[in-house]
Amino acid sequence: MREFTSADIACLDEIIKARRDVRGNRFLDKKIDDETLDKLLQAACDAPSVGFSQPWKFVIVKDAKKRDEIYQDFLKENEKAKEIFKDKELYSKLKLEGIKESYLNIAVLYEKSDKRVLGQTSQKKMGEYSVVCAIQNFWLMARAHNIGVGWVSILKPKRVKKILNIEKNHKLIAYLTVGYVDEFLDEPELLTLDWEKRKSMKDIKVI
Amino acid sequence: MREFTSADIACLDEIIKARRDVRGNRFLDKKIDDETLDKLLQAACDAPSVGFSQPWKFVIVKDAKKRDEIYQDFLKENEKAKEIFKDKELYSKLKLEGIKESYLNIAVLYEKSDKRVLGQTSQKKMGEYSVVCAIQNFWLMARAHNIGVGWVSILKPKRVKKILNIEKNHKLIAYLTVGYVDEFLDEPELLTLDWEKRKSMKDIKVI
Repeated sequence: MREFTSADIACLDEIIKARRDVRGNRFLDKKIDDETLDKLLQAACDAPSVGFSQPWKFVIVKDAKKRDEIYQDFLKENEKAKEIFKDKELYSKLKLEGIKESYLNIAVLYEKSDKRVLGQTSQKKMGEYSVVCAIQNFWLMARAHNIGVGWVSILKPKRVKKILNIEKNHKLIAYLTVGYVDEFLDEPELLTLDWEKRKSMKDIKVI
Repeated sequence: MREFTSADIACLDEIIKARRDVRGNRFLDKKIDDETLDKLLQAACDAPSVGFSQPWKFVIVKDAKKRDEIYQDFLKENEKAKEIFKDKELYSKLKLEGIKESYLNIAVLYEKSDKRVLGQTSQKKMGEYSVVCAIQNFWLMARAHNIGVGWVSILKPKRVKKILNIEKNHKLIAYLTVGYVDEFLDEPELLTLDWEKRKSMKDIKVI
């Protein structure tokens, strides 16, 4: 059994703290080689999953035409969002995706199982949550490789699935933009711009 | 901007691969000090969150009576699960939780926002997914501290919320059991016992 040390803890802590949600204004036009991409996907697949069901699927999107179609969907959804945030001037100035600027995109899917899954009998969402664990592993491993990841959520899952011709029994969990960057910001941008404050850990309840 | 090295990549990879879902037969009766627990919770709070909303809440459960009530709910839900898996003899032999044996439990909650959240206008689940990212950070940081975590999903969220007196606008995402262990298994137990096979990465689609 591997015993980790304080140096290992510090390493993980640095990677966790240095991870950012990267947008299009930071991505570089630099290739990610297949071997590196495989390592990031391997980290994703080493995530915990309910009943060891490994219900994740990955669709790597490099095709420019498909990405433009996804981008058009972002524009449409973001128009609705701008309306929701119309009293906040900052919103419309924010760069909220990097669909076309990143080296590649990944649609991360949850494959619904047609058989029963151990541990998923009382809580149906467990499969989706397993996929999110895989995404977080991917994100951290990408950061360790000095590769940026952005999670684009201002998209209509139904339309993304249609554009990418994704089967019915797969649910879109995340649409990721992935690429090398010119810079990882020191702090989350929405904190720096005072969109949200950092929450205190003080209100943790102990029973 | 912090540039990580191949040594950092190797460190993260080892932690990711050594992480296990720990059950009650592995937990030790050994205290986790508050400073250490804070570090694990801090890693959770450094997770990405939609619109920097940080919608996670943690309830640390140490009380033996409450834990016994949760355990009774597990027994009830697991009876139903045993019925579902009645043709698989192995199921009823598996130890599937460590509610009472672990040093502490944590209910991880999603606090629904009463205001609009940036990035959550097209996909409502983004808040819940942010909480799962926090859980995965917690899990990895725990493993780096040689502390085991088990995610107990054979529980009825409604009953857990009632037992722990959790407010209505909070959703239970995970019930974690946390403690030092005598051993981290080399491989996921459900793989070793041939309950599930490891999936190949070969069917990744590229568009």
